[in-house]
Amino acid sequence: MITPPNASHNRSVLAVGSVAFDTIQTPAGKADSVLGGSVNYFSIASSFYAPVEIVGVVGEDFPKSHLEWLSKRRIDVSGIQIVSGKTFHWVGAYDTNLNEAKTLSTALNVFEHFNPKLAPSHTRASYVFLANIDPVLQQSVLDQVAAPKLVACDSMNFWITGKPEEFKKTLKRVDILSVNEGEAYLLSGQKNIAKAAEIIRGMGPSVVVIKRGEYGATLFTPNGTFLAPAYPVDTVIDPTGAGDSFAGAFMGFLAEAGVDRAMAQTDPARWETLLRRAVLAGCVMASFTVEDFSMHRLMRLETKELVDRQHALMKMISL
Amino acid sequence: MITPPNASHNRSVLAVGSVAFDTIQTPAGKADSVLGGSVNYFSIASSFYAPVEIVGVVGEDFPKSHLEWLSKRRIDVSGIQIVSGKTFHWVGAYDTNLNEAKTLSTALNVFEHFNPKLAPSHTRASYVFLANIDPVLQQSVLDQVAAPKLVACDSMNFWITGKPEEFKKTLKRVDILSVNEGEAYLLSGQKNIAKAAEIIRGMGPSVVVIKRGEYGATLFTPNGTFLAPAYPVDTVIDPTGAGDSFAGAFMGFLAEAGVDRAMAQTDPARWETLLRRAVLAGCVMASFTVEDFSMHRLMRLETKELVDRQHALMKMISL
Repeated sequence: MITPPNASHNRSVLAVGSVAFDTIQTPAGKADSVLGGSVNYFSIASSFYAPVEIVGVVGEDFPKSHLEWLSKRRIDVSGIQIVSGKTFHWVGAYDTNLNEAKTLSTALNVFEHFNPKLAPSHTRASYVFLANIDPVLQQSVLDQVAAPKLVACDSMNFWITGKPEEFKKTLKRVDILSVNEGEAYLLSGQKNIAKAAEIIRGMGPSVVVIKRGEYGATLFTPNGTFLAPAYPVDTVIDPTGAGDSFAGAFMGFLAEAGVDRAMAQTDPARWETLLRRAVLAGCVMASFTVEDFSMHRLMRLETKELVDRQHALMKMISL
Repeated sequence: MITPPNASHNRSVLAVGSVAFDTIQTPAGKADSVLGGSVNYFSIASSFYAPVEIVGVVGEDFPKSHLEWLSKRRIDVSGIQIVSGKTFHWVGAYDTNLNEAKTLSTALNVFEHFNPKLAPSHTRASYVFLANIDPVLQQSVLDQVAAPKLVACDSMNFWITGKPEEFKKTLKRVDILSVNEGEAYLLSGQKNIAKAAEIIRGMGPSVVVIKRGEYGATLFTPNGTFLAPAYPVDTVIDPTGAGDSFAGAFMGFLAEAGVDRAMAQTDPARWETLLRRAVLAGCVMASFTVEDFSMHRLMRLETKELVDRQHALMKMISL
């Protein structure tokens, strides 16, 4: 397994974002009102590596059994508020280009008034992941966390174009930005991955991870570039959640290994190597996610399968 | 440098295919009637690694100075017939998706009656590359070569759909097929790269290289899969010839290293490693080709630049 070195530090990952129902059409079929949402995917993926604390909101229609399932695998769901109303519902579709989702409708429901208030225990988080939410809320989360050692964030076109100034404020406060290729082009104004990453790094995050769907992910740090391939799966059923589960494994790996922003100065070679291994861990996790609708594949994923596929991917990139 | 181990065997690469003029429109601009053609690109790329012998046909309008330029760098152009008439002229365009060329017109001219007759010295070739030509001609070339140690071929949609039975006969006689992603899907009827490669390997070639443009190339052998990334260039000016120069460096590397089909049995681990390194050599060469129109970049490429970029790519895939 691409196993992070053990760590004795506080290695919980705090993740703030959406928990949702998704209705998804892909060339492989359709799934109606299935479990979705960024921190839902993120937390399952991350929990293979490190304890996770998630903050979000659901309506009364959300299955308690799922929250119970999460909490049985070192995922702290006490930050999930259950409020009167309906859960966020995203309806999307993919055509044969499985790398880009098309949003058909978005019913924000209870998510519309989401305003994350962290419990005292969550404010002590060392590792923070700000999933794709309003950049104003992303900053509000950072205001509440006392002394994070490593902060990563995601975003999407909606916020990059809709609240560019606020998103730039978020970027100044994060160590790592993880976005997909199209988002990187939009944010940077550059349709070239290396140039885009350089411009984005100039906006704040010292590390940029550009997710490229079936083509893998590229890591940009002050020390260089790492080209990580996707694990070639037999059949892609549903790409939804691939990016969030990538981020979950990536951050879980870093947390477990104790990789923080200080290490970039104290041990840059080790920091770089662990970031690269974390990207591969993310690629492998995403390859499972896409093999079924919703988080079905992740929910039945066995550690041995994960280990085997990690070994297989390592062999596919070794000389 | 990704340097092939020295070899004392006959390491010339015989390449049969087109020499042409291209008129190309890309988002970066337009080039009118510039040097093109598969074996033209192939031979320059290959000559960085091994001696090359090319077989093709041009009209009286083709600049002799270019043939002289080629022959000054261990490229034997004695197999290029100069016949009465005009040189093959391809007119193509790329939209923002630089991975796929659109053919606007094809004037075969003297290429229409191309029927490669090998000189006696060429029939003794150990390494043979059959560029994208009529599969009947590809077989005719193989009929003339006495005892090739390694044969690779390329093709395109036009032949895969136009002469499928003839192309399948070619495939039964080659060790390596190098095609792009779309061609692999068309040939296999599978829109999944691993499945496509498996089906194609069942048609004859034990090794399949699927070229994926800016996403690199994937190597499939009986021993496994190798995921090679493209070198991330700053600006892609013209993708024309990227695949042919990939193949040129790939075959040149294998020839120089003495990798033949026998090695697959006698030393499979070394065979696999050298094939993987050859793919990386191909990716690096292609990354130069796309930096300018026609073969301009390859023609001014210095060995030091090649070495530096090979080192850089190795660093980008190392953990």
